[in-house]
Amino acid sequence: MNSVKYLFEPERVALIGSGNLREKVGMTSPQLFKSVTYNMRKYFDGKIIPIDIDANDSSKLEKKKPELAVIMLPPELSLQQAGICAKAGVKALIMITGGFKNDQREQLVRLKRDYGARILGPNTIMGVINTANGLNTTFEKNTMPSEGKIAVISQSGGVGACLLDWACYYSIGISKFAFMGDKIDVNDVDLLEYFSQDRKTKVICLYIEGIENGRDFIKTAKRIVKTKPILALKGGITQEAVRRALSHTSSIAGTDEVFDAALKKAGIIRTANIEELLDAAIALSKQPPLKGDNVAIVSNVGGPAILAADAVARNGLKLARLSETTKRSIEARYQGIDASNPIDIIADARKERYATVLRHVLSDPNVDGALVINMLKSTFFEPEDALVIVNASKERYHKPIVDVPAGGDDFNLVHKVLEKSNIPMYNLPEKAAKALKALRLYAKVVDGKSGKRERKRE
Amino acid sequence: MNSVKYLFEPERVALIGSGNLREKVGMTSPQLFKSVTYNMRKYFDGKIIPIDIDANDSSKLEKKKPELAVIMLPPELSLQQAGICAKAGVKALIMITGGFKNDQREQLVRLKRDYGARILGPNTIMGVINTANGLNTTFEKNTMPSEGKIAVISQSGGVGACLLDWACYYSIGISKFAFMGDKIDVNDVDLLEYFSQDRKTKVICLYIEGIENGRDFIKTAKRIVKTKPILALKGGITQEAVRRALSHTSSIAGTDEVFDAALKKAGIIRTANIEELLDAAIALSKQPPLKGDNVAIVSNVGGPAILAADAVARNGLKLARLSETTKRSIEARYQGIDASNPIDIIADARKERYATVLRHVLSDPNVDGALVINMLKSTFFEPEDALVIVNASKERYHKPIVDVPAGGDDFNLVHKVLEKSNIPMYNLPEKAAKALKALRLYAKVVDGKSGKRERKRE
Repeated sequence: MNSVKYLFEPERVALIGSGNLREKVGMTSPQLFKSVTYNMRKYFDGKIIPIDIDANDSSKLEKKKPELAVIMLPPELSLQQAGICAKAGVKALIMITGGFKNDQREQLVRLKRDYGARILGPNTIMGVINTANGLNTTFEKNTMPSEGKIAVISQSGGVGACLLDWACYYSIGISKFAFMGDKIDVNDVDLLEYFSQDRKTKVICLYIEGIENGRDFIKTAKRIVKTKPILALKGGITQEAVRRALSHTSSIAGTDEVFDAALKKAGIIRTANIEELLDAAIALSKQPPLKGDNVAIVSNVGGPAILAADAVARNGLKLARLSETTKRSIEARYQGIDASNPIDIIADARKERYATVLRHVLSDPNVDGALVINMLKSTFFEPEDALVIVNASKERYHKPIVDVPAGGDDFNLVHKVLEKSNIPMYNLPEKAAKALKALRLYAKVVDGKSGKRERKRE
Repeated sequence: MNSVKYLFEPERVALIGSGNLREKVGMTSPQLFKSVTYNMRKYFDGKIIPIDIDANDSSKLEKKKPELAVIMLPPELSLQQAGICAKAGVKALIMITGGFKNDQREQLVRLKRDYGARILGPNTIMGVINTANGLNTTFEKNTMPSEGKIAVISQSGGVGACLLDWACYYSIGISKFAFMGDKIDVNDVDLLEYFSQDRKTKVICLYIEGIENGRDFIKTAKRIVKTKPILALKGGITQEAVRRALSHTSSIAGTDEVFDAALKKAGIIRTANIEELLDAAIALSKQPPLKGDNVAIVSNVGGPAILAADAVARNGLKLARLSETTKRSIEARYQGIDASNPIDIIADARKERYATVLRHVLSDPNVDGALVINMLKSTFFEPEDALVIVNASKERYHKPIVDVPAGGDDFNLVHKVLEKSNIPMYNLPEKAAKALKALRLYAKVVDGKSGKRERKRE
C-alpha cells in the first residue's frame, strides 16, 4: 500500500479548488487555485485535471483517473472532496489548506485506512515539487528550482519557503521538495523511505521542529545514511522557541541535548542554519566524502588563504603537511612560490598553474581533500580558468575539492562557469571549510565511526 | 605634520607609472597604470596629473603641485619618483607595488623623515578609496562602492579586495577604504586616528593579521570606541596560519587568546568572517546600540521566527517578555494572533499590521530592540510594505530594529526598497541576531561595562 510515490510521480493530477470561494480566515482563494494551476501548467509534464467545485465537474475524477489530487479548499469542503477522490481510487492526496479540527483530521485518517489513499498534510501549504517531471503544487508563481540531487523535507511552511527561495535564487540543484504540514498520515519516516529509494536523490535535507515517532525515525535514518547522507536543521532549540514549536507539533520530549544525541545516533549531520544546511548538501551531492582530516589550501591570494587555514582548524580539520616530493615539485616548477600549506600560488596564477599544483597536491598521500581559492578581479585569474578545477576533480583521486571564488561579483562570475559542474562553490573560505567538515562527518558515518557503539546495541 | 588626510582628501593627484614597463615578477605593467588612471578619471572629482615616466614628464609635479602621488613602478624607480615627489612638496604618497628590499624601505622612511611626506605602503596594491570625492586608486575597473558610513582598513590586499567586492556587490555603503600594505609609515593607529575624526565615517572595520605597536594601538582604539565603534576580523588564529601571517608581518607575539584579550581591552568588537564583519558594520552604521538584552521578534511566518528565537538566545540575548498591556493591545486588535514573543502576525499581515505591532512592541519598556521578519512570495507581504519599518525606526524609541526578508529573491526584493534607508537587512534570521549582538556589545563598550577594569588601570 505504499503509494507515497504517487505524491511525486503521478501521471495524472487533479487540481481541486474554487474560482469563487474566498475565506475570511484561512488561505482558500481563487488566487490560490489559479496560481497552483498556473505553475502546474507551466512545469508539469503529465496530464492536469483542473476541477472547479463551483462548476460541479467532480465527475472528471471518474473519467480521467488521476493518481494524485491537490485539494485547496476550506476544511469541510476539502474533506468532502478527499472522500470523493479516495472512493474514485485516487492514490495520493495533497491537502494544501490548514485549520482542520481534530474530528476532521480523524475523518482524513479514516479515509486513508478505508481506501488506502496516502495523505500529505493537511496544512502542507506548498505541497510538493519534483524537478524531474515538473510537478509543482506551490502557489509561488514561476518558482521552480533547477534539477539536482538534493531532496528537501520541511516541517514548516515558512522555513520550507525560505529553503525553496534560497535554492532557486542560488541555482542549487533540487530533486524534490516536500512540505509536510500536519502529518496526519505521510510523515518524516515515509518521506525518508521514499527518498532513500529515489534515484534522483543523493542527499536528503530535513527541517524539523520535533519528531513524534523517534525510535522509528532513528532506525530508518540509521539504515539510510549508509548510502545517502541526511542533513538536519532543527528549529526550537531554546526553551522559548520550544514552547512555540510545541504549539504546532507534539515533539520528542526533552532538551536540545537529547535531540542532538538522537541525531548523532541516527548518523544525521546537524547544521546551524538554512545556508549551512544547503551548503553542506551541495558538497555532499557533488563530491566524495573526506576520508581523513588533512586539507590542502591552494590560493591565488594570501589573506583569504590564512582565513581558510583558520577555518579549517576551527572545524576540527587539519592543514595537510605536504610531502617533500610535492613541495619540491611545485617549488621547482614555480619560482618564488613557497609550497607550504596554505599554498599561495600568487596573483598571476592562471589555469596551467592551478592545474599543475592541484595535480601534485591531490596525488599527495598526506592530503585528503582540497580547498581552492580563486579571486578574480584583484588577480590575473579569469572565470574560465576555473574549469581546470573540474578536470582535477575528474582524475579519480577520490578526494573532495571545494572552490572559493571569494567575494560578491567574483563568486558570481565563477559560479556562472561552474554552476552545472560537480564543484561546490562558496563565497567565503569559512563556508567552504564548514562544507568540508560535513564531508568529513559523512565519511565517519559511512565508516561506522560515528555512533558506532549505539549501532552495536541493536 | 599629520598629512594623512591628503591620502584621502587631496585636490590634485599625480598618477605615476609607465606605459611600457612590464615586470617579469611584480605587478608593474602598462595595464596597471591604465586601469588606475581609468578609475581615477571615471570617479575622482579633483584634478588628475598622469605622469608617464617614459615620457619624462616629471616636471608636471613642480607646476601642478599635487598633494598626493600614486606610484606604480618597480621598487628602484618607485623610490626615485618618491624622492622627486617628496622634494617637490607632495604631502602624501601611495606606493602601490611590492618587492621592496630592506634598504629600499629604509630609504622610504628617510624620505618621510626629511620631507614630511606621509607614505602608505609599499605593497598597498589597491591604495585607497574615498566615496565622498571619488578618489579610487584601485586597479579593478568600474569598482566603486556606494557612499556610506563604514570605513575599512585592510592589512591584506586579498582580504581587502574581497571586502571591497562584497561591499560593491551587496551595495554596502562605504566612506573610505585603506589598504595598508607593508606599513613602513602610515599604520593602523594613524588610520584609526584619521577615521575617528572623519565626519563621513561612523564605523571602522579592521582586517588585521598582527599589530606591531600593541600598546599604542589599544590606547588609541580605547579612546575612539567611545564615539565610534571599531570592528575587527583577525587572520591567523591557528598555529599554521600564524606561521604564514608572520611571514609578511611582525605581529604582536602570543596566541589568539592574547590577541582576543587585547581587542576586548580596547573595546574592539571581534567578528568571525568577512560577512559577519560587514553585517555588524551595517547594523552599527544605521541603528542605535542595543541597550539591554531583550529582543522582540515580529514575523509573518512561523518557522523562521522560531529559528530567530534560537539565534537570539545563542547570541547571548533574550527573548523579551512582552508586558501584558502590549500583549492585550495586539491580541485585541488582531483576532487569532498570539502575541507571545516571537510574535507570529500571520501570513496575511501587510503594512498596517506590521506598523501597529511594531509600535506596540517598541514602546514596551520590556523590549530593547526588534528583529523583524518579512517573507514575501509565500505570504501576502509586498516589498513596499517594508517601508513601515523605516517609519517605525524614526519614532525615536532609540531602540534598534533589524529586518530579515529571509531567503534569496525575497531578500533582494525588499533590499531594493530599503537599500537607502537606515534599516539593516539580513537574508537569514541567524545573521540578524549576530548583528543585534554587535549592537549589544557596542552598548556595553559605550557604557564602559566592557573591559572596565582595564580602563581604570590607565
